[in-house]
Amino acid sequence: MSERESNHTLETILSHRSVRRYKKQPIPESVMEMVLHAATRASTTGNMQLYSIIVNQDEEMKKMIAPAHFNQPAVTSAAAVLTFCADFRRFNQWCRCRDAEPGYDNLQSFMWAVVDAVAATQNACLAAESLGLGICYMGTVTYNAHELIKIYGLPEGVVPVTCITMGYPAEEPPLADRLPMEGIVHQEMYHDYDRERIDSVYAERETSAETLRLLKENDLPNLARIFTERRYKAEDNVAFSRLFMKVLEEQGFMNF
Amino acid sequence: MSERESNHTLETILSHRSVRRYKKQPIPESVMEMVLHAATRASTTGNMQLYSIIVNQDEEMKKMIAPAHFNQPAVTSAAAVLTFCADFRRFNQWCRCRDAEPGYDNLQSFMWAVVDAVAATQNACLAAESLGLGICYMGTVTYNAHELIKIYGLPEGVVPVTCITMGYPAEEPPLADRLPMEGIVHQEMYHDYDRERIDSVYAERETSAETLRLLKENDLPNLARIFTERRYKAEDNVAFSRLFMKVLEEQGFMNF
Repeated sequence: MSERESNHTLETILSHRSVRRYKKQPIPESVMEMVLHAATRASTTGNMQLYSIIVNQDEEMKKMIAPAHFNQPAVTSAAAVLTFCADFRRFNQWCRCRDAEPGYDNLQSFMWAVVDAVAATQNACLAAESLGLGICYMGTVTYNAHELIKIYGLPEGVVPVTCITMGYPAEEPPLADRLPMEGIVHQEMYHDYDRERIDSVYAERETSAETLRLLKENDLPNLARIFTERRYKAEDNVAFSRLFMKVLEEQGFMNF
Repeated sequence: MSERESNHTLETILSHRSVRRYKKQPIPESVMEMVLHAATRASTTGNMQLYSIIVNQDEEMKKMIAPAHFNQPAVTSAAAVLTFCADFRRFNQWCRCRDAEPGYDNLQSFMWAVVDAVAATQNACLAAESLGLGICYMGTVTYNAHELIKIYGLPEGVVPVTCITMGYPAEEPPLADRLPMEGIVHQEMYHDYDRERIDSVYAERETSAETLRLLKENDLPNLARIFTERRYKAEDNVAFSRLFMKVLEEQGFMNF
């Protein structure tokens, strides 16, 4: 990379690693405020800001939500847990208070709110990392959205979609590997993946020391089967999909 | 903000504005490469990288996709249009090539891919902005996903979820206003919005010069009704929701 294409923002972006163990050190209020402020500067659909951010720093509250995140250490050791919700509640209430009839109980509206929430989340992550914090996304937030709705008391129009844990790092994990750029980027049109291209895109990952270690540990013949048979199993995905669809119905995004 | 809580990354984040008019100036290849590379460093569910990025810089291709974005100037004047797709195709093909049975044709899997795609998009935006480019999100991408699927030839497992236009700015829009932080952030629990809180959260926005201008222009009594009766109408939202649900079914994310 030439000097012209290097700067602190890029350095922050390029040096991201998920941190799952944190020091017992609280986050100063001014730092948390900056992280939250950064979140709200992300692009948002029609400037509607269709998200809310629930901040948990209280030990009792963190214990309450931990089971919904399968008690992962990233949650239990975090100084703060931020849950970003797709939120049409505030906007709908505003409309109702102004004699305007909201028509946002549908899938498009949910998608706008999801995109808003995730863009805000990613801003929060980069702001946090630029200030010396470590972060980790918790995919469990959509698995157990129904549990979090109960704990937080989320009304109609509100669905948790991302969750990040945050704290001063107590570990220094290496940079994660990524697929080669040509496996991700499509010039002008979509170029489909045949066997030859798949072999090429996954070659480096499949022969890494980490993969060889995982294969031994899991007693499976290849990395793909670690995903399908251990990490993200069809039966779990189906069960959690049904729960999440029920959440979308109950929170009022499936009326169309 | 204290000096300790200021840095180039935060400056990039805090100075974002959506740029909708661009100079006729191409993006150097090294800059585009850095933007795309930055995108791939975002957090991703289980390091599966469940997204693809389609890059349009060719004038003919930009003309082809413009109608799907209602021919907005942000698209027609952009040096590049990047469409981020939730993509399980590559991962599924990998599984099939490795004798692993993918179980990712469901809503949870779609959500992972959406979060992955949006986090990558936001990284691309900030990288671009740090390198002097302007960007704008195009919400039209989910309205007309069915059209983009045809144009790009997207196979099963692939759904466009975000689109950003990009180029050197030919305008300097002011920073957009945002709701006050206490309207967005919830400490520990969700605090619902009653009329008093709604009045307080929306007070500044409702009395801004920009709002007063819009009310006159639209001949409507309040800002909320500009949203419900002009910008985001129930009948459009319902129609586009039905189209997008069909997309999710046809692209294979509704089998659960």
